[in-house]
Amino acid sequence: MKRRLIAIALLALGAGAQAQNPDSVAIRKIYNEALGNGQAYEWLRHLTKQVGPRLSGSAGAQKAVDWTKQLMEQQGFDRVFLQEVMVPHWVRGAKEVAYIQSGKQKITVPIAALGGSVATGPKGVEAPVIEVKTFQELRDLGADKVKGKIVFFNRPMDPTKLNTFEAYGGAVDQRANGATEAAKLGAVGAIVRSMTVAHDDNPHTGGMRYGTGVPLIPTAAISTNGADLLSKTLKESPGLTFYFKQNCETLPDAKSYNVVGEIKGSEKPDEIIVVGGHLDSWDLSEGAHDDGAGCMQSVEVLRMMKTLGMKPKHTIRAVMFMNEENGLRGGIGYADYAKKGAEKHLAAVESDNGGFTPRGFGIVGTAEQKAHVLQWKGLLAPYGLYDIGPGGGGADIGPLAQSGTVLFGFKPDSQRYFDYHHTGIDRFEAVSPRELALGAASMAALVYLIDQHGL
Amino acid sequence: MKRRLIAIALLALGAGAQAQNPDSVAIRKIYNEALGNGQAYEWLRHLTKQVGPRLSGSAGAQKAVDWTKQLMEQQGFDRVFLQEVMVPHWVRGAKEVAYIQSGKQKITVPIAALGGSVATGPKGVEAPVIEVKTFQELRDLGADKVKGKIVFFNRPMDPTKLNTFEAYGGAVDQRANGATEAAKLGAVGAIVRSMTVAHDDNPHTGGMRYGTGVPLIPTAAISTNGADLLSKTLKESPGLTFYFKQNCETLPDAKSYNVVGEIKGSEKPDEIIVVGGHLDSWDLSEGAHDDGAGCMQSVEVLRMMKTLGMKPKHTIRAVMFMNEENGLRGGIGYADYAKKGAEKHLAAVESDNGGFTPRGFGIVGTAEQKAHVLQWKGLLAPYGLYDIGPGGGGADIGPLAQSGTVLFGFKPDSQRYFDYHHTGIDRFEAVSPRELALGAASMAALVYLIDQHGL
Repeated sequence: MKRRLIAIALLALGAGAQAQNPDSVAIRKIYNEALGNGQAYEWLRHLTKQVGPRLSGSAGAQKAVDWTKQLMEQQGFDRVFLQEVMVPHWVRGAKEVAYIQSGKQKITVPIAALGGSVATGPKGVEAPVIEVKTFQELRDLGADKVKGKIVFFNRPMDPTKLNTFEAYGGAVDQRANGATEAAKLGAVGAIVRSMTVAHDDNPHTGGMRYGTGVPLIPTAAISTNGADLLSKTLKESPGLTFYFKQNCETLPDAKSYNVVGEIKGSEKPDEIIVVGGHLDSWDLSEGAHDDGAGCMQSVEVLRMMKTLGMKPKHTIRAVMFMNEENGLRGGIGYADYAKKGAEKHLAAVESDNGGFTPRGFGIVGTAEQKAHVLQWKGLLAPYGLYDIGPGGGGADIGPLAQSGTVLFGFKPDSQRYFDYHHTGIDRFEAVSPRELALGAASMAALVYLIDQHGL
Repeated sequence: MKRRLIAIALLALGAGAQAQNPDSVAIRKIYNEALGNGQAYEWLRHLTKQVGPRLSGSAGAQKAVDWTKQLMEQQGFDRVFLQEVMVPHWVRGAKEVAYIQSGKQKITVPIAALGGSVATGPKGVEAPVIEVKTFQELRDLGADKVKGKIVFFNRPMDPTKLNTFEAYGGAVDQRANGATEAAKLGAVGAIVRSMTVAHDDNPHTGGMRYGTGVPLIPTAAISTNGADLLSKTLKESPGLTFYFKQNCETLPDAKSYNVVGEIKGSEKPDEIIVVGGHLDSWDLSEGAHDDGAGCMQSVEVLRMMKTLGMKPKHTIRAVMFMNEENGLRGGIGYADYAKKGAEKHLAAVESDNGGFTPRGFGIVGTAEQKAHVLQWKGLLAPYGLYDIGPGGGGADIGPLAQSGTVLFGFKPDSQRYFDYHHTGIDRFEAVSPRELALGAASMAALVYLIDQHGL
């Protein structure tokens, strides 16, 4: 009996301590604000619907720079400024055309030129097709069998991977380097299965790079349904030809900007905590999940801290990085500015995995820093943030690592991300207001804990 | 150095043991099957698009019974059978009409009669409106102020609750009992704010019940945007009237069925593990998340066990319960059949919270049973099932509790559920194939562990 009484007393004390713990109180306030009065969703509506697609170097990208600067100024942040960066300027031109020519049958399929690809020329390219799953398979075929052909890279993302980013990692070499590998063996074009586990008619564009010393051959993504059809038709008619025409072009580098807003730290204004996403998107897309979500969540983090009267010790900075999609010039430029200004960056948090329900954070730092962060698990677990541990940070904040900044990659649920990724359906309607708000709250809670307890 | 070697050796042993642990191997196989070759999504397409709405007593419900019986027979389950139950038979009739009459201004708003409500009569009901947030507020007003009026219940679901089912629980009394409370004070109708945290134009229908000894007044749900507009207009023009007309009717109880399929146990065929969802849906909706998802996941659990050559020790039963939405006759009937047949039900798992990404299971059982299940946490955590512990089972399996069956409620992520719940937009397109498949795999993994290790 006595033992039970003590247990109850301890339980009551524990509950009291929990309720009065200033960290858990602050975090609860953040979530209440995000869920009850969140602004990120309406801002995202503006960014996707009024600004729209914003590929680096485009008028849309400039509009996005102007509008997010204005947005942060309207929030009354202590300082809002631009960081100039020169960015690649690739343009798609007229919509692509592609079809399978099998005997007299002509079957149109949806393609999208990959970002960075050259055009086909006005007549397009038509050639027999050779399908491969891996670069090794391609090399084993050899130049004799590849020369003059279009190489069709058709290795799917592995649907059995729980985390779709892992599945993406296992397939995206085809998109990034397929054209180069094909060109080495004399191919005249490269067609790549879209990076998604969905079966649909949306071609998923994305970045590619040419290796040095190989011919620049045109390359495009084909929708997964189109890829299945091409593969099937090839089995029936190995002699078919594939035709595609694309009109894309790389213009001279253009001037653009990272957009930065900050709340000055009250105790350590010279130590900075960054929270950010990337402002550019692919041209085909409103860039809602990729990465309007991360940008608007980052501004929301600062807005909530201000609205809730939190006075951060460190300077908290929201950074809208430019050019993550096809150059990373914003991320590289930001780290350069930080180095030149001898700015100390304590931590950087990036949201670039979509505006989905939060599951945790990946940490890039020393074992001690990771252990320190893991002490906060109990404060974050009630909000579904159970997956906190080693993991990637984010492309844009990556360059900060070399100066010892601890990087945090926000991890939302990954199941739907590649349904939308780099396609026309990555639009505002694909975002849940609650999922987006929870992401912003999770990021704000982490920033709050870093600010309070250091790293 | 030596210590480190031992640590590495132990780690290697641990990794080996993990890889060879037959439970983790079996669970991995289940997830591979669900994600790589899952059938639930295509079945759900059929149930939502070819069968469609299936309110108890409707032709759609009968079509759903016939088709799911056929589906389970086609899967080659050991036994497929129907359990007859008599169900309420409510019909909506012609689409409702509603408007706010404020001076000369007539503003149409979207409403939907609540299931079980009486009609207004062919001329409709028009009356001044009194807005309340709680039953206490209504009672405090008293009969003088309520008599002859339409009571407008406008307490929103609390958006700051992390789990939307909690927010629902805090508001749904208005829908279930609002008409009765209003009628007690002489009201002529009851209009209830839709049960969602979304701001939209979809009225969310749902069940209501009349108390005994009070007049049966008509009651309907109004969309949240409509509710906000009515509230705002009331503040400006307290003398406005609200008009609504609905044509619903309760017909005599109809004959219907639970649909049951089973795989016979190899060691304990007389001990049963149930996995189920409910087959009926509201008439306005394809019933994709509610609860076509749960039904198709349940059939998928049995299909996967069969396909993977698992020979369960216990009998595994997929049950499509009829009439969860407005009577629970299927759930009650199932427990009655079990009792009459002296069937032993070891466990029952229900999926009725939508086809979203899995997060865990709620358990209803003894402390020992819960502790036993918690031993499996390490096997389930790699699949994102981190939220395993006390919690609700499910309405349909609830009646099995009295005979000592351990109940498990499948818990998917709750953020989007009430965007769709009981509306026309709860359709196939709202379901993610991967999220649905992961739910089926989670349920199968749990059923597997119960079957292997008992409770």
